[in-house]
Amino acid sequence: MDGKIVGILGGGQLGRMLVEAAHRLNVKTVILESGTDAPAKQINAVGAHVDGSFKDYKSIAALAEKCDVLTVEIEHIDVDALIKAQKEHNVEVYPLPETIRLIQDKYTQKEHLIQHGIDVAESVAVESTEQALQEVGSKYGYPFMLKARTLAYDGRGNYVVKTESDIREALNFLKDRPLYAEKWCPFTKELSVMVVRTIEGEVFAYPTVETIHKRNICHLVYAPARINDTVQKKASLLAMNAVKSFPGCGIFGVEMFVLPDGELLVNEIAPRPHNSGHYTIDACVTSQFEAHIRAVVGLPMPKGFTSLTTTITNAIMLNVLGDDDVPNKELETCRRALETPNASVYLYGKSTRPQRKMGHINIVSSSMEDCQSRLDYIVGDSDLIPEGIESKEKPLVGIIMGSDSDLPVMAVGASILKKFGVPFEVTIVSAHRTPHRMSKYAIEAPKRGLKCIIAGAGGAAHLPGMVAAMTPLPVIGVPVKGSTLDGVDSLHSIVQMPRGIPVATVAINNSTNAALLAIRILGAYDYKWLQEMNTYMNNMENEVLAKAERLETVGFENY
Amino acid sequence: MDGKIVGILGGGQLGRMLVEAAHRLNVKTVILESGTDAPAKQINAVGAHVDGSFKDYKSIAALAEKCDVLTVEIEHIDVDALIKAQKEHNVEVYPLPETIRLIQDKYTQKEHLIQHGIDVAESVAVESTEQALQEVGSKYGYPFMLKARTLAYDGRGNYVVKTESDIREALNFLKDRPLYAEKWCPFTKELSVMVVRTIEGEVFAYPTVETIHKRNICHLVYAPARINDTVQKKASLLAMNAVKSFPGCGIFGVEMFVLPDGELLVNEIAPRPHNSGHYTIDACVTSQFEAHIRAVVGLPMPKGFTSLTTTITNAIMLNVLGDDDVPNKELETCRRALETPNASVYLYGKSTRPQRKMGHINIVSSSMEDCQSRLDYIVGDSDLIPEGIESKEKPLVGIIMGSDSDLPVMAVGASILKKFGVPFEVTIVSAHRTPHRMSKYAIEAPKRGLKCIIAGAGGAAHLPGMVAAMTPLPVIGVPVKGSTLDGVDSLHSIVQMPRGIPVATVAINNSTNAALLAIRILGAYDYKWLQEMNTYMNNMENEVLAKAERLETVGFENY
Repeated sequence: MDGKIVGILGGGQLGRMLVEAAHRLNVKTVILESGTDAPAKQINAVGAHVDGSFKDYKSIAALAEKCDVLTVEIEHIDVDALIKAQKEHNVEVYPLPETIRLIQDKYTQKEHLIQHGIDVAESVAVESTEQALQEVGSKYGYPFMLKARTLAYDGRGNYVVKTESDIREALNFLKDRPLYAEKWCPFTKELSVMVVRTIEGEVFAYPTVETIHKRNICHLVYAPARINDTVQKKASLLAMNAVKSFPGCGIFGVEMFVLPDGELLVNEIAPRPHNSGHYTIDACVTSQFEAHIRAVVGLPMPKGFTSLTTTITNAIMLNVLGDDDVPNKELETCRRALETPNASVYLYGKSTRPQRKMGHINIVSSSMEDCQSRLDYIVGDSDLIPEGIESKEKPLVGIIMGSDSDLPVMAVGASILKKFGVPFEVTIVSAHRTPHRMSKYAIEAPKRGLKCIIAGAGGAAHLPGMVAAMTPLPVIGVPVKGSTLDGVDSLHSIVQMPRGIPVATVAINNSTNAALLAIRILGAYDYKWLQEMNTYMNNMENEVLAKAERLETVGFENY
Repeated sequence: MDGKIVGILGGGQLGRMLVEAAHRLNVKTVILESGTDAPAKQINAVGAHVDGSFKDYKSIAALAEKCDVLTVEIEHIDVDALIKAQKEHNVEVYPLPETIRLIQDKYTQKEHLIQHGIDVAESVAVESTEQALQEVGSKYGYPFMLKARTLAYDGRGNYVVKTESDIREALNFLKDRPLYAEKWCPFTKELSVMVVRTIEGEVFAYPTVETIHKRNICHLVYAPARINDTVQKKASLLAMNAVKSFPGCGIFGVEMFVLPDGELLVNEIAPRPHNSGHYTIDACVTSQFEAHIRAVVGLPMPKGFTSLTTTITNAIMLNVLGDDDVPNKELETCRRALETPNASVYLYGKSTRPQRKMGHINIVSSSMEDCQSRLDYIVGDSDLIPEGIESKEKPLVGIIMGSDSDLPVMAVGASILKKFGVPFEVTIVSAHRTPHRMSKYAIEAPKRGLKCIIAGAGGAAHLPGMVAAMTPLPVIGVPVKGSTLDGVDSLHSIVQMPRGIPVATVAINNSTNAALLAIRILGAYDYKWLQEMNTYMNNMENEVLAKAERLETVGFENY
């Protein structure tokens, strides 16, 4: 739609995924990249791609001539050439060339962020001399980071200066490049947030994710980040503020460090789609690539911008890198991913090379634990293919009781669950006789996929309350009637929990209602069980109506 | 991966979406279609597509020469030519040519299904004479369907013979085509199931969906179908059995009728991706297109084949058809979809024509009601853009009480929900004084998105039980202590519910625990709340430990 033709400087995997997203919206794209077989060119029939370099004025001008809007999939382009081509061919360029220039030099990028009140690691531009670096060492202490200001990616422009004696080697490693030094940042985690900015200046953030690097290359992304909500939210706000500081529009990847005290520093910003946002293809309704295309051609964004499909979507992204020793051996990982329910494989159409980004794998599921077990299979850490979510017979409800003497009462509830087809388990856990087993059961329940625990107990009846004290899941208590006191002892023991630890108590001996309550709890989020409960309630109503009719028909004496 | 090149007969939107899926797996594709701008060719850089007809031997042979496997995106191809090309060029062909031939003739298709024990509407091959049709009329009664055996799609080969006097017109409408007559099938719904078959003969079914036609063209697809689980399951089994009857591999679309008694008849089968499976792009991890590509090149299928991402994904697909009057006016619908959170737009790169399939829109959400409200906006039935799911401030928990005199007790629980950031609502609903308001509240609660209701009541305390009797959601009862009997009256009234209708009862006056229980219920499915509960419990533990430390330090006398 829209009719604008988008020219993309660069034809790698990011360009390829931009082209795919553009196709879906029938937005035409033209690629500038050397050669004819670049990943982005492979999936685009336009006969007239530009064969050339994104550092070369003529090539950029040739691209501009064919397009209405130019964008980039890599920031290492020739900005002056781009500006010249923009003026001569009257095309829009997003992100703005000024933004690209600012970001190309990681030190001016930092200065810009500081000016806009964004926290970054302390750093200083340095001359390429031993003396200058010794001064940095005495100011920042050791270790510190020595970084190339330009053309650095995947850690290739970084050097850790551990002691003064490393300085010569560091200068040698980064020779002839403009440098800056950064104070050592003892981060505990690396986070990233994709933010899209519209031409009106609105910014929308994707969820905060966690990135794990291996040999300086992005290895895994966990979405959302395995960190508390407050830090996630803070990261999101920080990223949005950072992106607000750049006029123009498009998608930005904001990389951050989490410090031991939970504070955040922006590491660096990419003015384009980013490896840490590949998970959005599967976990979000609008991917980072589609968001970028929409932004640069001025198509509407979803109002309010919902990023995750549902609040319970979790995702892991695994980069597929070319194998170090055996060409294409990385495809074995892809095969395992194809066998794995809830995993998707994306290959970029590149020829294999050690450590080259050949593709990625997205895993989505309702829990991160489940994503992780799928990842374990894919990378070969486990030989057990995780089951599909729908074929799960993993119990959703656990029924426990203090003693087998409670079974006659509790079995009635178990039969109800069985009748409804709810996967469940039944076992004996005694608060007083197996306290450690009880702790283990309560603590592990959520991880095992249980959604709710039904605990039956008589007399002092401590089991429901003690289990509730050790699990965040809802616990339903069934007071079991003993030989004295009519079960009122258990009822009061179960229901009169102190503030802070609730037990959902049902009537004495009424495990039927405990089971039905468990199904209602499942039904609160899973429509299937809500429907089953509706049907059950309808049938109950019909049964009573039938009895009423019979009573009215035959009369009370003959009933 | 895999290295096999796939040739596709046909270059329309189904071919386009197959090509997209193949790209992701780095499976190369070549298209056979007339012209150079077919939808599937637009997104594929292969310079050497075949320009020709899929009904022409030479063109098919030219395709076969370039490929290892041939497949189809349309069944109206020349089967004899395909078989000849297959033999001469030694390529695999999936679906098998024999299957395509069998399915091309809708009457032999039906005979085949009957032979394999699949229920279909009663039908008979007929001569194109008035006499033959009169005989059908007296056998089947009126109305009956007269259908072309071949080349029929989107209702274009069907004629409803309402009375004997329609026969001449019917013959005229379908003249010169081989015909069959079908007994009138008074269906209540149309269902469809996509089934993929691997070369080993395994079949995997996608969820059962409901299709809504308008002017004989697919208009909407609801996934899953809005029909009970039993019928859904039956449809799935019927579809899998039908597809098992065809050797070879690939994806099949199985269309079915639901009769008034809930029985199912297969209407017809498409040996290729199908319009009713477009929702799988967004609602399923592996789309129908990827499943087909995996099947025909022999890549692994997900073990156990989980189709939906999560058990709570619902989807609606809307076809975007060319506007009847104003060219490209249908793009306005697409713009509205772009504005709508949770909707995705797919355009096929075709020039517009009235009623032409120009694209489709997928909507995904955790509830069908939510999908529907988004659809209402997109088609212009509503002017309210539905909010993103994450920005929902729709209440998840409802707190109700019989009288404002209960508020001091219930407000404590409300503060807990507020502290946790749980969206909730508080109101007065009296079982005895506002019985109809109570019914309405209870019945509408699930539709409004409530996950759980907390009801406080004193004395006779009927509110929690009565609400539980009219809603399938979990209801938490808080016994409120009155001026006499210490609240034991309310406790017993709330907790001692009859079998069938549970109320999760907490301690007398303890609305804190009611709120915490509600959060645990949310946490059973929504990890965010589970984490919040964990944090809360940790803090509670730490507080007590701090007190313990203080007591131990300062001694019990100075504490």
